Amino acid sequence: MNESERYIGVFDSGIGGLTVMKSILDKLPQENIIYFGDTAHVPYGTRSRAQITDYVIADVNFLRTFALKALVIACNTADSIARTAVEAMLPVPVFGVVEPASRRAAAVTRNGKIGVIATNATVGSGAYEAAVTAVNPELQVLSKACPLLVPLVENGRFHRGDPVIATVLQEYLTPLREAGIDTLVLGCTHYPLLQDLIAELMPGITIISSSEAAADALADGLAAQGLSAAQGGRRAYYVSDNAAGFEAAARTFMGGDLGGAVTLIKPED
Amino acid sequence: MNESERYIGVFDSGIGGLTVMKSILDKLPQENIIYFGDTAHVPYGTRSRAQITDYVIADVNFLRTFALKALVIACNTADSIARTAVEAMLPVPVFGVVEPASRRAAAVTRNGKIGVIATNATVGSGAYEAAVTAVNPELQVLSKACPLLVPLVENGRFHRGDPVIATVLQEYLTPLREAGIDTLVLGCTHYPLLQDLIAELMPGITIISSSEAAADALADGLAAQGLSAAQGGRRAYYVSDNAAGFEAAARTFMGGDLGGAVTLIKPED
Repeated sequence: MNESERYIGVFDSGIGGLTVMKSILDKLPQENIIYFGDTAHVPYGTRSRAQITDYVIADVNFLRTFALKALVIACNTADSIARTAVEAMLPVPVFGVVEPASRRAAAVTRNGKIGVIATNATVGSGAYEAAVTAVNPELQVLSKACPLLVPLVENGRFHRGDPVIATVLQEYLTPLREAGIDTLVLGCTHYPLLQDLIAELMPGITIISSSEAAADALADGLAAQGLSAAQGGRRAYYVSDNAAGFEAAARTFMGGDLGGAVTLIKPED
Repeated sequence: MNESERYIGVFDSGIGGLTVMKSILDKLPQENIIYFGDTAHVPYGTRSRAQITDYVIADVNFLRTFALKALVIACNTADSIARTAVEAMLPVPVFGVVEPASRRAAAVTRNGKIGVIATNATVGSGAYEAAVTAVNPELQVLSKACPLLVPLVENGRFHRGDPVIATVLQEYLTPLREAGIDTLVLGCTHYPLLQDLIAELMPGITIISSSEAAADALADGLAAQGLSAAQGGRRAYYVSDNAAGFEAAARTFMGGDLGGAVTLIKPED
């Protein structure tokens, strides 16, 4: 197997990472990709640092049984907490979501006030603050943990006219709007499904999807390292629980077909 | 150790079972109890039958390292899905939540229409329908899966005046009220925290807490088998992740002190 035809491994706590997968497939349709969703342990965003790290190590241990050329941490919580652990496990380049979204936010803000919405674990880690101020220490990051958004999205509550998601978004976003941010990072891969609703509540504020930023950074990184595939397009999905439920939810998150089979595996067995 | 002084093992997917624990402590303060909350794998209610069964078996394998005289499945999802598996693992009596709540509902209904609110997995299992019609095949059970209630309660959204919980409860409960139920089973151990709000939306309808019914059935069952403790009152709590978070949430769920230490353990290690 030619080096460039090896797989890109993509992993997430469950289905959220499929918004990253969708952005990757839009941009890099010729790449061969293995996706792993740890649906037996979802959600990560409410767990301890130690537990998240343990689960992430198991995820990577599974993915590295394939011939990988790159790995994508398609989960803000995992990237925030366990990035260093992942990099130590693999000889291939590791791409994430936090750094690309932070770099993009730092590039577009004019007033230097960047809002980040994310899970409890991501906000608690301070990863976005670190990544943004690494680009420019003058920038200010205002983070808001939004623990109800993942369960609401996973229960299909992301449609215009749903009073529950409208009320919850208003509550989470109002303090950021009032604080005068001009840029808002969607720091969880579930949130792109709420992007239109969020944009309506944040007029004049630039919305940055960590999923899109991650796909762009992956494309640039592969090209820079001569790892871009010229042909391929094979995709396979693995989950640690409930393959049928994943497949149904995946159509929503991907906005279409997965383009590959879904297989149930138990990485820890 | 005298037989009656052995421990009652109580387990749950996380913190919800603490409402059962509270009811047990109110009724049986002299019992020695070990509680295990599988916080590394919470929530169970959205997972597959096979995965729930695997987690429950690990929970019981941990608890049976103690000298048990009885086991309480303090989680409607676990009881609905894995009761038979648990009974096969242990030589001691196993108590649950579904059967006590079903018997109580069957005893109090006058019009024969019983509503049950619960997790997706509990509703999908048909366990309440089976338990109620085992008492009286004429009774009708109307079940409603309420997947947003667990995340809302776990995020503290159970107070009067919170528009989010009010809207969600109205949505879930209206079809049951309109269908003419006269009895409603709270078929998830998180729901007692919502009992007052639910009662306001269901005037004239008898609310049955599976947590209270379970504690009563445990007390009766221990007495009938000569297993009631005369003295003791030792309590210990084990969790599989985030002991500090558990302790904070526990005060809310128990309405006071735990009366014992919380220890982090990894049953699967």
